[in-house]
Amino acid sequence: MKAHTEYLTLHTQKRRDLVHLTPTLAPIVQRSGVAEGFMLVSAMHITAGVFVNDDESGLHADIWEWLEKLAPAGPDYHHHRTGEDNGDAHLKSLLVHHEVIVPITRGRMDLGTWQRVFYAEFDGQRDKRIIVKVMGT
Amino acid sequence: MKAHTEYLTLHTQKRRDLVHLTPTLAPIVQRSGVAEGFMLVSAMHITAGVFVNDDESGLHADIWEWLEKLAPAGPDYHHHRTGEDNGDAHLKSLLVHHEVIVPITRGRMDLGTWQRVFYAEFDGQRDKRIIVKVMGT
Amino acid sequence: MKAHTEYLTLHTQKRRDLVHLTPTLAPIVQRSGVAEGFMLVSAMHITAGVFVNDDESGLHADIWEWLEKLAPAGPDYHHHRTGEDNGDAHLKSLLVHHEVIVPITRGRMDLGTWQRVFYAEFDGQRDKRIIVKVMGT
Repeated sequence: MKAHTEYLTLHTQKRRDLVHLTPTLAPIVQRSGVAEGFMLVSAMHITAGVFVNDDESGLHADIWEWLEKLAPAGPDYHHHRTGEDNGDAHLKSLLVHHEVIVPITRGRMDLGTWQRVFYAEFDGQRDKRIIVKVMGT
Repeated sequence: MKAHTEYLTLHTQKRRDLVHLTPTLAPIVQRSGVAEGFMLVSAMHITAGVFVNDDESGLHADIWEWLEKLAPAGPDYHHHRTGEDNGDAHLKSLLVHHEVIVPITRGRMDLGTWQRVFYAEFDGQRDKRIIVKVMGT
Repeated sequence: MKAHTEYLTLHTQKRRDLVHLTPTLAPIVQRSGVAEGFMLVSAMHITAGVFVNDDESGLHADIWEWLEKLAPAGPDYHHHRTGEDNGDAHLKSLLVHHEVIVPITRGRMDLGTWQRVFYAEFDGQRDKRIIVKVMGT
């Protein structure tokens, strides 16, 4: 059994942004030498998410409007008594989740035709880390 | 270490539907020969989900009403400028997620008494695929 | 490859509560003897969740208010025709999800600085079980 771990560091210019990770993940699978297994892609922060969906800009606009409706930014969170102003970012992270498992088959990510992996930054403009861990044979 | 992969193809008659997968998954665990490990059950589409909950028809009605409230079908999604009309299906997929990991113990799915695995179709009436990958010893 | 499984039993005094699991999980990783791998932490119930976020009491109050807004307790669920009164607990479980994968690196949980693992009880005051399964080398 092989295990291979890499850490990605992202620093978005905007406070809220989506980063398409699939092109970054493909060479990590190759470097892992794993033919059959699982790849965990997990944000190491509580104000970010990782999810699988379509790489279509209109849909991405829909996702942001939807996240803002269900977990709005605003001044009224109890969490802000600590001096933070990112209460919404924590709830958005819970909503889309902070991690996915990508199956690896014959040395490649075994994704559907339109499936792409995204990092969702909800409180950026600073260095944030993602762990990518591949395990298999 | 063993790895075993199967692909399921579903084609629901209704556009939106729940399919109970647990009876289909049990023989896959047996065929894998894995006694201790993890089983990934993951939709290969961005308009479908996989989740674990109760097999109770009233609850399923509640889940559909709830999904429609939080991620409603409608004509107003930016994504529809591409010619699609399934913007809600993408958001519903994000909400319930597209995959679960089922633990395997002593050669069986190690689920709680009422836990069942469901495929949630949000834009069906066509062939859709699910990957099931079992990894362990 | 090693696989190690433990079951936790929780019994919250309140019907709805958060339980910080990280201190309970650390010795399980040690007992597993796994240096590199994955740890699944999964509620064995359909009215509970497991998630990763911050251990900050104000944020926890925000999370409860948010869950109540998006998946409110109330008498109007179809599921209640079965005699149950916990329809909201099922929807809250779908929202936050019932499981997480924690990466294990050099024999420890490889979490970000502020990441902590929580069990979310949505229908407690009785024994509930969590499966913790560690797999790796």
